[in-house]
Amino acid sequence: MTFPRIDETHDAALTCWVEGAQGHGEFPVQNLPYGVFSHGDARRRLGVAIGEWVLDLAGIADLLPVGRDLLGAATLNGLFALPAADRLALRRMLSALLCDESKRARVAEHLHPAGECTLHLPAAIGDYTDFYVGIHHAADIGKLFRPDNPLLPNYKYVPIGYHGRASSIRPSGVPVRRPCGQRKAPEAAAPTFGPSARLDYELELGVWIGPGNALGETVPIGEAADHIAGFCLLNDWSARDFQAWEYVPLGPFLAKNFQSTISPWVVTAEALAPFRQAQPPRPEGDPRPLDYLWDETDQAHGGLGVELEVFITTAAMRAAGLAPHRLSHGPASNMYWTVQQMVTHHASNGCNLAPGDLLGTGTISAPVPDGYGSLMELSQGGKVKVALPGGEERTFLEDGDEIVLRACARREGYAAIGFGECRARVEPAR
Amino acid sequence: MTFPRIDETHDAALTCWVEGAQGHGEFPVQNLPYGVFSHGDARRRLGVAIGEWVLDLAGIADLLPVGRDLLGAATLNGLFALPAADRLALRRMLSALLCDESKRARVAEHLHPAGECTLHLPAAIGDYTDFYVGIHHAADIGKLFRPDNPLLPNYKYVPIGYHGRASSIRPSGVPVRRPCGQRKAPEAAAPTFGPSARLDYELELGVWIGPGNALGETVPIGEAADHIAGFCLLNDWSARDFQAWEYVPLGPFLAKNFQSTISPWVVTAEALAPFRQAQPPRPEGDPRPLDYLWDETDQAHGGLGVELEVFITTAAMRAAGLAPHRLSHGPASNMYWTVQQMVTHHASNGCNLAPGDLLGTGTISAPVPDGYGSLMELSQGGKVKVALPGGEERTFLEDGDEIVLRACARREGYAAIGFGECRARVEPAR
Repeated sequence: MTFPRIDETHDAALTCWVEGAQGHGEFPVQNLPYGVFSHGDARRRLGVAIGEWVLDLAGIADLLPVGRDLLGAATLNGLFALPAADRLALRRMLSALLCDESKRARVAEHLHPAGECTLHLPAAIGDYTDFYVGIHHAADIGKLFRPDNPLLPNYKYVPIGYHGRASSIRPSGVPVRRPCGQRKAPEAAAPTFGPSARLDYELELGVWIGPGNALGETVPIGEAADHIAGFCLLNDWSARDFQAWEYVPLGPFLAKNFQSTISPWVVTAEALAPFRQAQPPRPEGDPRPLDYLWDETDQAHGGLGVELEVFITTAAMRAAGLAPHRLSHGPASNMYWTVQQMVTHHASNGCNLAPGDLLGTGTISAPVPDGYGSLMELSQGGKVKVALPGGEERTFLEDGDEIVLRACARREGYAAIGFGECRARVEPAR
Repeated sequence: MTFPRIDETHDAALTCWVEGAQGHGEFPVQNLPYGVFSHGDARRRLGVAIGEWVLDLAGIADLLPVGRDLLGAATLNGLFALPAADRLALRRMLSALLCDESKRARVAEHLHPAGECTLHLPAAIGDYTDFYVGIHHAADIGKLFRPDNPLLPNYKYVPIGYHGRASSIRPSGVPVRRPCGQRKAPEAAAPTFGPSARLDYELELGVWIGPGNALGETVPIGEAADHIAGFCLLNDWSARDFQAWEYVPLGPFLAKNFQSTISPWVVTAEALAPFRQAQPPRPEGDPRPLDYLWDETDQAHGGLGVELEVFITTAAMRAAGLAPHRLSHGPASNMYWTVQQMVTHHASNGCNLAPGDLLGTGTISAPVPDGYGSLMELSQGGKVKVALPGGEERTFLEDGDEIVLRACARREGYAAIGFGECRARVEPAR
């Protein structure tokens, strides 16, 4: 397993010449996440977040060790396809340019104020797969949907996943319309069709696939890290009433595919090198994963030291000028499987993963109420009201509610690496 | 509901000047399916099957009522995106050209012998969704996976579907490698990893999406036919041992996504106009579909008069010179929901469908043994051996087995409309 290493690009003492970037809480020079932006009426182009600026990569293509065709593209798919070594070389050059005062004049003209930029989906997403590796979420939801049988026998052997909808993934900021669909109360004789009454968010990490594998080939666990280009936040909006009625036997469908929201910046695997950590040991009595999923290095370094948060702002809170309310927070270490195990499992049958494919981790909940990653868990299936500032309460989302997911990697002696935000507001049903 | 109408392009008396096309059993001039082909080393281009020939559309672009940009593309996505009226205009012009002897000199030079052409995927498939509308298959499989509970309460209200893998769809002719994965015998304490011992095919129709809908919009049932560009055959290869172990609670994943095979010709909705028929009435006691899925015209004309067949040839049969053996045959009318209901349901929550998306119907089985659309059903879950010519038997597929799906629409007074073949041979696991 060859994870990106800690190198000079992570040095907390780096000095960046970009105004306001030094010590920036999310996008210091040690981060350098990639994205796709537009400025004014101009076409979509590749950028890097640095402080409160976006650096136009095509503008400095002649300074970078990557083909101009890739840097002039409107999606990151080409960059994701590069071997890990080439992605690292690009990161190093960007870091060097942004810390070298002598390059300032040449580079600074390609910086745009972030507030003037529109951020788009970073890649053309070929296939989107959602996993279910947040074990506390799986147990919480299992209890609600299947009281007798919360965590199924396969859970500790199989990184459970399913295919999601790629076409309806949208970047932060695009509103989400409350979906209509079939829902049936347990006591009702038949379902009815109408707006979801149990609209929920889910706090997830997204994983951007790098080079990938050809059909019929696999990604051995020892090589999985090479195929992970970066990470984002993912809000897997869910209509719990539709889900309960439709999901047996073939899984969630219309309960999920009306929209998913991602944060637009791709935090690279290289940027997160200092925040790799040991995967928490499996509880006593849990089986050891099968050999194809087992790698000592992955267990020792394959975890992610990332803290996650969910905030809500209701229409009434906005009107009253109240600050966003934090609904939950917790660490990504509540994943039962590493992201490398997700990749290896996905390709273990020869299924081909491609640059720009997106994997979701599934909801990451902590085993304590202030770490629950969905309202379904916070409200115990709608039975308990969640108190909000200003006297409001929620079991599920109401129109006008805005959900913001945030994530940050922190470690003593290193600059904090932020993910930016994953934000969307609920609009009324049609 | 505006289905394509029967018009002069369906006239059985049309005379086509292409050698051997007159009375062709699959691709007469009344069919005109679209595909993507290459000839020699040349790039991929759009073609139409006519008899044993492929007509290069880019070569006659100046004669056709469609933009040269669409006809010069390497996928059909652009054509699929056209309004139904434009697709019809193109069909009419092609029919006229191929029946007008005076155009022969101009058009014939763009005909290539089909045997010299390689056929590719017809479109860049954005998202692939597999439904489960073959009610006899759902009941058969339900009995095997859930003896107590074969057909679930939602089945007669919800056109059940789930997202599949787009990246691993391959055209007819590409071999399928036996996948490895986790399987657990009921009596075993733990799963093991290895080649599937219960590899199966599934007989399905594929539905190519036309213009589609924007995110947050829907496709009313009365307009659904306008968003169906055409049809193909789909073999949804399935590893039944993986499926049984992994599919609860989120549905099939690695049991299906290692490969799916489609027939490369897109039989247009227009070509099938004479073969539209009434949807069989629901059995006494079944609920009426909810309003958003209900349309009288759809019930009267939304069915498909298409006959389906599955053939197998084993390695031993090939060596002995034996003909392919027909495993099953039956009509597409064994679908509980119409393809229009599938489209409308899929978009009912605002999920955006796009040109080139592919829907599978799910396995279409007849309620009699010689109509079962999978070995899982023919062998009753592996318990009964299926006899083959030459003394062989099968419960599931063995290496070297080749499966061919075929379909044909027939009706007195009309030319037969064939789908071509959906063929693939099983290769040993890695």
